[in-house]
Amino acid sequence: MPADKLEVLGLGNAIVDVIAQAEDDFLVTHGLAKGGMMLIDEAAALRLYNSMGSATVISGGSAANTIVGLSSLGIRTAFVGKLRDDEAGRSFAHDIRKSGVHFETPFASDGPSTARCLVLVTPDGERTMNTYLGACQNLGPEDIDEKLVREASILYLEGYLWDPPAAKEAFKKAAAIAHAAGNQVALTLSDAFCIDRYREEFLELIRHKVVDIVFANQHELKSLYQTSDFDSAVAAFRNEGVLGAVTRSEDGCLIITRDVTLAVPASPIEKLVDTTGAGDLFAAGFLAGLVRGSDLRDAGRLGGLAAAEVIQHYGARPQVNLASYAADNGISVPA
Amino acid sequence: MPADKLEVLGLGNAIVDVIAQAEDDFLVTHGLAKGGMMLIDEAAALRLYNSMGSATVISGGSAANTIVGLSSLGIRTAFVGKLRDDEAGRSFAHDIRKSGVHFETPFASDGPSTARCLVLVTPDGERTMNTYLGACQNLGPEDIDEKLVREASILYLEGYLWDPPAAKEAFKKAAAIAHAAGNQVALTLSDAFCIDRYREEFLELIRHKVVDIVFANQHELKSLYQTSDFDSAVAAFRNEGVLGAVTRSEDGCLIITRDVTLAVPASPIEKLVDTTGAGDLFAAGFLAGLVRGSDLRDAGRLGGLAAAEVIQHYGARPQVNLASYAADNGISVPA
Repeated sequence: MPADKLEVLGLGNAIVDVIAQAEDDFLVTHGLAKGGMMLIDEAAALRLYNSMGSATVISGGSAANTIVGLSSLGIRTAFVGKLRDDEAGRSFAHDIRKSGVHFETPFASDGPSTARCLVLVTPDGERTMNTYLGACQNLGPEDIDEKLVREASILYLEGYLWDPPAAKEAFKKAAAIAHAAGNQVALTLSDAFCIDRYREEFLELIRHKVVDIVFANQHELKSLYQTSDFDSAVAAFRNEGVLGAVTRSEDGCLIITRDVTLAVPASPIEKLVDTTGAGDLFAAGFLAGLVRGSDLRDAGRLGGLAAAEVIQHYGARPQVNLASYAADNGISVPA
Repeated sequence: MPADKLEVLGLGNAIVDVIAQAEDDFLVTHGLAKGGMMLIDEAAALRLYNSMGSATVISGGSAANTIVGLSSLGIRTAFVGKLRDDEAGRSFAHDIRKSGVHFETPFASDGPSTARCLVLVTPDGERTMNTYLGACQNLGPEDIDEKLVREASILYLEGYLWDPPAAKEAFKKAAAIAHAAGNQVALTLSDAFCIDRYREEFLELIRHKVVDIVFANQHELKSLYQTSDFDSAVAAFRNEGVLGAVTRSEDGCLIITRDVTLAVPASPIEKLVDTTGAGDLFAAGFLAGLVRGSDLRDAGRLGGLAAAEVIQHYGARPQVNLASYAADNGISVPA
């Protein structure tokens, strides 16, 4: 740990992405819902891997991607997530540490292997994810380092933590410690299918102010309130009285508080390659702005820039220094 | 194997690339010669990995990259190379087969692990490679499938095969079978350091017509003839009386026969990201033209296009269908 105070701590599923290109037909043949994340067991993961094409392997995981993005923006970060002590686990640990993130969650020395997400990228740049949770199923409250949670100004959590059995207990424990220390708690709703699985619990987290900041895309926000009308969903969310950042792909984002709804345009890109990590990196930029005292519009612009970088190449981790990338595009992360 | 006749068979080191960005200072600190390929043992590979940044893992290997490129250009291909039955080995086998390449070399069930190449990409797009040969050291003449060699119109070999102890015996066996069957034999000189190690043997291969086609870049050609003057090296090569294709980065390539020296300009690119695989993919395009009866200029243009695609992203395997990419850029692979 640097002597400087930690700024953002992330808690999430520690996953290695295995990314291949696929035609839309492939998704249909294998019964995969385009754009979503499906949970699969190890045997299904092996079957799918054997069917999919030549792959690129890059560390992933939703909250982990966000934390790495924050680190690339110059924010002091730490991550908590469960790996097995296998080849994939060691490479995940290597990558996140080399990205400047404090990471000390002990490896599981037995049980299931490190989690994999088989990501299929269709020609339109959309990604369809198939996750074998593996070792993430062993994340629990005992993995929460109270000192780290108290130290971080923002605790960032992913909705996907509701999938493994004990992780939501870790989530709740961490959120309680954060609030007791006067810190903020942020949650990404992860995806529309995840919301379908845990809608009532997510609404309860928001309504009981277990979370202060919510990230969602437009589909997720509509799913949360079970409406096909985006404006109604925005209105419903506004009444919750927590800060929301809702991404709308090429239409940029809406930042929602009880009092204002602010539209921030998307950052221009040259070529869409792979949308994997777009939401994760938007959250990174937005939180970087927030934790360093930017106004909401600048935080939204930082989110848009970080997302723009990551969708122009394969994989959900930035390929350039995001602080420099943002500065080159006219917006600096405050010191 | 498809019922159709095999067109190109590649023999090379089967390697998984572990690619990270690095500043020039990193190369200096670790004593790495920029642009070259250094052989390292497993302990040194682990030390270097622990020092380098967050990495992307993609199947590689020089001849293997060429063969995958040929397959992407619609050429019927096979590959011979040695893997261990570990995680990296299984992913290499998956990737090359899913790229449409016939690959049946048996895994080693003991001995060293699958080979890794730690690739450091500097901000100028140049790559510096550090190879742990691992299981490749067990490739030998017994791995050569005579039937496949006889069937392929062109046998493609990498100079790096001189590094593991028994692979050059496999190389010589395969070349003899190919010539006896009336097929052509192509060799890439691999890199200037490789030529330093085996200059006399490579010259002997050329002068005894063990090889009919030679791939090199300008540095390698100068190294072969131990001259700092490129024109002298070209003149010396012309006298050998074999076909040569010499790449010159952004200056395109020279195609050299005893009678003509043909300059073909490079294909334009938008942004140089990572030169890994540039030479390998040039060879793929050139051989695709050659085996399908293109004239030398069109073969050179196909080589330039395939190289242009691969240097605009990380990794040495194409990210698009190269046959379509070539057609979109005005040159088709003949049927």
